[in-house]
Amino acid sequence: MPKFRGLLENNNLKIATAGVPLLADALTNQQVELSRVDWRPAVAGTQDALNRVMADSRRNEANSLALTKMLAAGALLVDVRQAKDALNLEDNTFLHAGPPIDWDRASGPMRGALLGGAIFEGLAKDAEEAERILSKGVVEWEPCHHRNAVGPMAGVVTPSMWMFELLDPSTGNRSWCSLNEGLGKVLRYGAYSQEVIDRLRWMTEVLGPLLKSAVDRRNQSEAGPVDVHAILAQMIQMGDEGHNRNRAGTLMLIRDLLPEMIESGAPTTDLATATRFIGGNDHFFLNLVMPACKLQTMAASNIPGSSVVTVMARNGTDFGIQVSGTGQTWYTGPAQTPVGLFLGSFTEVDANPDIGDSAITETAGVGGFSMAAAPAIVRFIGGSVPDALAATRRMYEITVGENVGFGIPVLEFRGAPTGIDVTRVVRTGILPQINTGMAGKLAGVGQVGAGLVNPPMECFESAIQGLALAAPQVG
Amino acid sequence: MPKFRGLLENNNLKIATAGVPLLADALTNQQVELSRVDWRPAVAGTQDALNRVMADSRRNEANSLALTKMLAAGALLVDVRQAKDALNLEDNTFLHAGPPIDWDRASGPMRGALLGGAIFEGLAKDAEEAERILSKGVVEWEPCHHRNAVGPMAGVVTPSMWMFELLDPSTGNRSWCSLNEGLGKVLRYGAYSQEVIDRLRWMTEVLGPLLKSAVDRRNQSEAGPVDVHAILAQMIQMGDEGHNRNRAGTLMLIRDLLPEMIESGAPTTDLATATRFIGGNDHFFLNLVMPACKLQTMAASNIPGSSVVTVMARNGTDFGIQVSGTGQTWYTGPAQTPVGLFLGSFTEVDANPDIGDSAITETAGVGGFSMAAAPAIVRFIGGSVPDALAATRRMYEITVGENVGFGIPVLEFRGAPTGIDVTRVVRTGILPQINTGMAGKLAGVGQVGAGLVNPPMECFESAIQGLALAAPQVG
Repeated sequence: MPKFRGLLENNNLKIATAGVPLLADALTNQQVELSRVDWRPAVAGTQDALNRVMADSRRNEANSLALTKMLAAGALLVDVRQAKDALNLEDNTFLHAGPPIDWDRASGPMRGALLGGAIFEGLAKDAEEAERILSKGVVEWEPCHHRNAVGPMAGVVTPSMWMFELLDPSTGNRSWCSLNEGLGKVLRYGAYSQEVIDRLRWMTEVLGPLLKSAVDRRNQSEAGPVDVHAILAQMIQMGDEGHNRNRAGTLMLIRDLLPEMIESGAPTTDLATATRFIGGNDHFFLNLVMPACKLQTMAASNIPGSSVVTVMARNGTDFGIQVSGTGQTWYTGPAQTPVGLFLGSFTEVDANPDIGDSAITETAGVGGFSMAAAPAIVRFIGGSVPDALAATRRMYEITVGENVGFGIPVLEFRGAPTGIDVTRVVRTGILPQINTGMAGKLAGVGQVGAGLVNPPMECFESAIQGLALAAPQVG
Repeated sequence: MPKFRGLLENNNLKIATAGVPLLADALTNQQVELSRVDWRPAVAGTQDALNRVMADSRRNEANSLALTKMLAAGALLVDVRQAKDALNLEDNTFLHAGPPIDWDRASGPMRGALLGGAIFEGLAKDAEEAERILSKGVVEWEPCHHRNAVGPMAGVVTPSMWMFELLDPSTGNRSWCSLNEGLGKVLRYGAYSQEVIDRLRWMTEVLGPLLKSAVDRRNQSEAGPVDVHAILAQMIQMGDEGHNRNRAGTLMLIRDLLPEMIESGAPTTDLATATRFIGGNDHFFLNLVMPACKLQTMAASNIPGSSVVTVMARNGTDFGIQVSGTGQTWYTGPAQTPVGLFLGSFTEVDANPDIGDSAITETAGVGGFSMAAAPAIVRFIGGSVPDALAATRRMYEITVGENVGFGIPVLEFRGAPTGIDVTRVVRTGILPQINTGMAGKLAGVGQVGAGLVNPPMECFESAIQGLALAAPQVG
């Protein structure tokens, strides 16, 4: 028996180790029993702020309230309207994904989508003219989130575009998102060729009004509005995670809206074309999941003392987060480039850094946080099935609670990990797991792949400083 | 050191144990290292027959061919026709689920469905008159399987009913199944009240012709026939196992057929009613999965020397199987009563023994065999998520191969366990795992629940004797 082990046993001592495993491993090699504590030092430079936030006596209750509100929020599809009406979007004003960004710092896909938006709105006849007016401030743009809207990828919304309008009955809040265009060469991935503009025109002239009349009919029917939140809960039972897999959700939307579309009296050709368009795009429902998630996180926002993240959004250059306790303040850092699988002959050199408001899904506990519910997603974004399960399990370490309404079957219906806590991110160094589409980094290219990405730690470092400043000053 | 261990070590001996763990456990308690072999004696009374079948030099190759053919079979939805046309079903002839059964031995739900069939066909004005003509042989009935059709639960098919017609391009085989009526009080669960008959009339007058014209249009379109086999592969990625969960499948059928239904020129009211009927019944697609599975097992049938099961079917009294090497011979035993969850105030005393041709899904490797793909099913049939995963893993022990086309995501896309081998069932004592609906045992009641069940071992004991008789006589 090694000397050290004898010493411990003779004196009835037990050992616990914390942090790096070097010491613990050495003892294990000597057959010494010990308890390992999984401890890491907080992210460098955050300790003082973290101490102050942890000492904030409001925090536990505020975070508990944030979780309760986030879980209580619902999402009913109450209208489909053009952005100029729904959001009072002024002429020459566009919305975009992520935190604020100017033309000079805008990435390729963001520029591409803004160019396409200007052409689509008839403000410019081609990309050259569009670039001139965009770079000179003739058109203004602001984040979707500033109007409680969300936009996937570049997230560009122009006044003529039709928007889904969702209502949270628990708060009366409303959120909006544009209609999904499909995959490949589409505006939200930064493409703006004629086919892109033509599709947007058809969506504006045919698809939007058709959806509007179906939604109106449905709202007046006995069934009442389509319950997007309930469909999302079902999706989690059907292999979707609500960010990069929305197959079952899209199908359920078709099931719920099609009888109303048929009865709307629209021309048969339009009905059949619209049905094929929606049915041919497994991501169509993403644009309903996103505002449903926004309603959840909106319900949890502006709670003094809460360290729960309420927005994660990227504009292709910067990644920005907002935190409940500090309202609409953005904390930003450089957007990272996703790692994943590429379409066709594209490779990692073609990929733009992370872009889009779609990380609102992870902010609400689905998407990358619920990947265990959607193991088949690894065929689209890369990685292995055990990785997907491990990602969800890891997210429980940085969230304040679980959403029993989104029970993950393979985890024996354990609720989705919900409510990212800035203090836990900073204390553990574990970053939120996002899965996402990848845009080409050049304007005009479109989608190049899909993969996994994290926010930069800088966002959380700034946020903990912001929360510390907002905390009551003690001592 | 115990004496026995010393003896082994001094003589450089190793121990292997087989069968009951008594001896192995005793040695383990003495810290003796050993290798455990998971061996069980064959089912009592089968050893001689088993020896003869195992000695059949054709067996390995025949089973390998059966698997290959089973995996190569496809399933295209090529037509929707009335049974009198599709199956040449004569007047006064009905089909039913399971092996042959006469009126005297027929269970409550089988009698109820036959009664309802007679009323629906106008052969009797009420149940009393129907019972008179049925018990006197005015109407004849035979198994669906005898005409390459399959019917869920009682599986009663009458000449006027519309049938899905599926084609396997690899063999040219065709299989048929009636249209699904929904849940609760429905003919296939033995109910025959006026609402049941009225629904069957609407299905005959409206739904059947509508589906027929949509399928015709679809077949002439660029997309070609709906690929039921491909939808089934997708379902396995979307939390369906194809027997008791067909949610995603039903939704994909709506997606694929609805544009054609819309363009068929049918009245708007009929279109909307049909869409709501299909969309409101998560099991609608079961009646397409079943003939798709029948096409798989048909492709593997009649291979001399093969011990692969090609049919498992129940009539509510008997459970019958057929085996590739012995063609259409039925091997039967008493149907067991499922254990599971009950609807409303029903309990286990209300449940009829196992009934229906739907175990064709398990025969083809889905249903209970692929439960790991559908963990949410435990909320419908009972049991736990680990049970569901364990059931699939156990089925690999009694099957000849895996269907990579039906990759189970949570098992890292391992193929569904496919091709039940009679010899493995008899050698291991492991019975196929079936999940199923439960009919009320009294005629007229309808569905009372859903649960888990196994075939009786008698079927496999008879089958191994049948295979032994068909094997070349050696020595």
